[in-house]
Amino acid sequence: MAQKPSIPKGTRDFNSIEMARRNYIFDTIKDNFKLFGYKQIETPAMENLSTLMGKYGEEGDKLLFKIQNSGDFLKNCTDEELLGRNAVKLTNKMCEKGLRYDLTVPFARFVVQHRNDLSLPFKRFQIQPVWRADRPQKGRYREFYQCDADVVGSDSLLNEVELLSLIDRVFKNLGIRVTVKLNNRKILQGIAESIGEGDKIIDITVAIDKIDKIGLENVNKELAEKGLSEDAISALRPILELTGSNEEKLAVMKCILKDSEVGLKGIEEMSEVINTIDCLGHECDMEIDISLARGLNYYTGTIIEVKAKDVEIGSITGGGRYDNLTGVFGMPGLSGVGISFGADRIYDVMTQLDLFPKSLEQSVKVMFVNFGEREAAKSLKYVAALREAGVPATLYPDSAKLKKQMTSAAADKIPYVAFVGETELDKDAIMIKNMETGEQKTYTLEEAINLLS
Amino acid sequence: MAQKPSIPKGTRDFNSIEMARRNYIFDTIKDNFKLFGYKQIETPAMENLSTLMGKYGEEGDKLLFKIQNSGDFLKNCTDEELLGRNAVKLTNKMCEKGLRYDLTVPFARFVVQHRNDLSLPFKRFQIQPVWRADRPQKGRYREFYQCDADVVGSDSLLNEVELLSLIDRVFKNLGIRVTVKLNNRKILQGIAESIGEGDKIIDITVAIDKIDKIGLENVNKELAEKGLSEDAISALRPILELTGSNEEKLAVMKCILKDSEVGLKGIEEMSEVINTIDCLGHECDMEIDISLARGLNYYTGTIIEVKAKDVEIGSITGGGRYDNLTGVFGMPGLSGVGISFGADRIYDVMTQLDLFPKSLEQSVKVMFVNFGEREAAKSLKYVAALREAGVPATLYPDSAKLKKQMTSAAADKIPYVAFVGETELDKDAIMIKNMETGEQKTYTLEEAINLLS
Repeated sequence: MAQKPSIPKGTRDFNSIEMARRNYIFDTIKDNFKLFGYKQIETPAMENLSTLMGKYGEEGDKLLFKIQNSGDFLKNCTDEELLGRNAVKLTNKMCEKGLRYDLTVPFARFVVQHRNDLSLPFKRFQIQPVWRADRPQKGRYREFYQCDADVVGSDSLLNEVELLSLIDRVFKNLGIRVTVKLNNRKILQGIAESIGEGDKIIDITVAIDKIDKIGLENVNKELAEKGLSEDAISALRPILELTGSNEEKLAVMKCILKDSEVGLKGIEEMSEVINTIDCLGHECDMEIDISLARGLNYYTGTIIEVKAKDVEIGSITGGGRYDNLTGVFGMPGLSGVGISFGADRIYDVMTQLDLFPKSLEQSVKVMFVNFGEREAAKSLKYVAALREAGVPATLYPDSAKLKKQMTSAAADKIPYVAFVGETELDKDAIMIKNMETGEQKTYTLEEAINLLS
Repeated sequence: MAQKPSIPKGTRDFNSIEMARRNYIFDTIKDNFKLFGYKQIETPAMENLSTLMGKYGEEGDKLLFKIQNSGDFLKNCTDEELLGRNAVKLTNKMCEKGLRYDLTVPFARFVVQHRNDLSLPFKRFQIQPVWRADRPQKGRYREFYQCDADVVGSDSLLNEVELLSLIDRVFKNLGIRVTVKLNNRKILQGIAESIGEGDKIIDITVAIDKIDKIGLENVNKELAEKGLSEDAISALRPILELTGSNEEKLAVMKCILKDSEVGLKGIEEMSEVINTIDCLGHECDMEIDISLARGLNYYTGTIIEVKAKDVEIGSITGGGRYDNLTGVFGMPGLSGVGISFGADRIYDVMTQLDLFPKSLEQSVKVMFVNFGEREAAKSLKYVAALREAGVPATLYPDSAKLKKQMTSAAADKIPYVAFVGETELDKDAIMIKNMETGEQKTYTLEEAINLLS
């Protein structure tokens, strides 16, 4: 019955070094979430398909992993339906559950389901895997983690400021130099309105986004093709050419958007957020970027995106304010703002920049060599005492050849190897070798604990 | 489009207090796994069904959650097959992947798949959820966590001793009084052989297991019904009546099993494990229990089971030695020994005995009340300084009514509330209220950091 085992494409095993590195990222994010007062929740991997379907667009529905009902999963299908072979229709009759596609929809479902037990504003964080039946490719997986923090039930822009502080601290802790890009959906809407093209906000945003790549002339050509008037296109020009400091950008836009109520509101929000975070202090660059339009159909205020400075890669964190997270589940009017850290991309950035601490590679601090029954019995006591003192320690379980035991210690990057042979047995001593320097010395147990603690 | 949201039966949401308590258990187990030199791995939630099917018996195959193939999942089925409505057969044609049912089979698959990258003996731990389409009932869920530690590639009984030490430490740390029950499959086999009924090992074990409940006479009646000879039944009697200390039990059995090679081997193993762990010291009771037979078809040596002393509940941890973990994947002869902590039952035990530290209920150490723009701006700076010092702190985001803010702090069990009103603003001071004692005092930032650190 032998079979060559493998795992589904787009999924991954993680070995112990990868786990140590991933945990380093997760723990850094989690510790900061807690420091900022976000409270952890978890939701089940499986949600009812009625909760998930229709929330991610038609394409998203196709990318949901669906779980076949247990037992007679065909019982809701007639013969005609089966022979009709309409995959979408039949899936809905054979499957009631699907795997979580993101953490946002389950969070919205959680808030509505437990509304009576939650006090608002509610600051939650959630770090769990999600699954998407996307075509796997470099850096895109079918199972990956999201690390989300959101506040719901508060309109205050202080929440935006807090999230920016949080981002600043996380990347400072991880040692990644980043630029935080900021925009506001209301400003984009104001721009579209002020040039008389309020319904073309998406076309305009796409065009703004392309200016660095294709130049002003080509952008204008595209806008004309989309049906923008010549007047609108020339009115847009100062925005396409916007440069300078955040203050300068805000000043120019305030002038351009002077007749748009929503636009001015957006500028006011942006100014307050930037002034407050500047006043509070931050290490990373915070930069207004009018071309930023992620999740435009979803966000209603501030939009946030984080890019690594030293690696060419997509955004490594993003988020923004939304006004109607829970409306689809029958609880309208709940405003919120949140961010999501992309742990897999952060991992790639840290790998490329060699930012992981070397200490993550070691499993235990010391391995005792096994010289046989009597020596092992004594070593076990030392190992127990070291563990009691909080020092990760191990005894090689078999009295194998010394070379094999030393090779194992080296493979596991164990920094110290301890020897309790006959000589040491008689003297209640431990010989310890520093694997980096090669130095060997004899210690009492107490001295050994001091050395290794 | 409003819908009343819910989650699939047998699954759970965890709120922040439940998460804090669950993490307390997971972290205690994980910290000890690391202290003992076990290395963490993770495997994907989805495995190929070819990896999972046939590993858990026919019943287990039915309890696997199967994931329907993406796109045209019907393409491998003929019209005849569809109309045949054979659910088991069709599932295999419509689904290539399933959700992990335990951590053992994925671990075996991992070891074989990555055999060239692993140095043996390999000590691994894994803490991840598993899924089973079992009928949900009290204490039984369709999604639950397993916490496994295993060593593969070493026959040494020191591995058993280590696992017993680990169990001892984990439950000492959690504050749960437990009895660790020990048996050895070879002893059970020896008993069956020595009474001339080597093929009835399971019937005999079941009978031994029942003696406390139904008494000697009824057990003997059952054994007769199963076809045991009168001689065999009377030869079994001293074993059914086995009592006393571990030493006494071992002595009696050594006498009874004197002609069974495998039985004596089992006693020798058991003696060595018990002597070594006794010599090393332990807090929990370690007790030989000949009726212990969990996973009898799987374990080949030591069998371990942990019961809580102060709560009536099934076993909260279990494990043992197996000889052929990876054979089914084409890598025979790899011996291993492992244990699995039942986090959900441990949670129930700790809840019933009220063992969770009260501090787990609090989210942050201090909440600053929001009195308006100027006060909030100053408070934000204090909050930032506290966080920099490692103190979890938060500012209420809205300048809501004081009563609402205080209610929120109380609901979140926040131990200190800080006030920066006009008076404090002028004096660079912070008024801090101890929510337990009601005491209020004014502090400088530095004093506040000392108080709250």
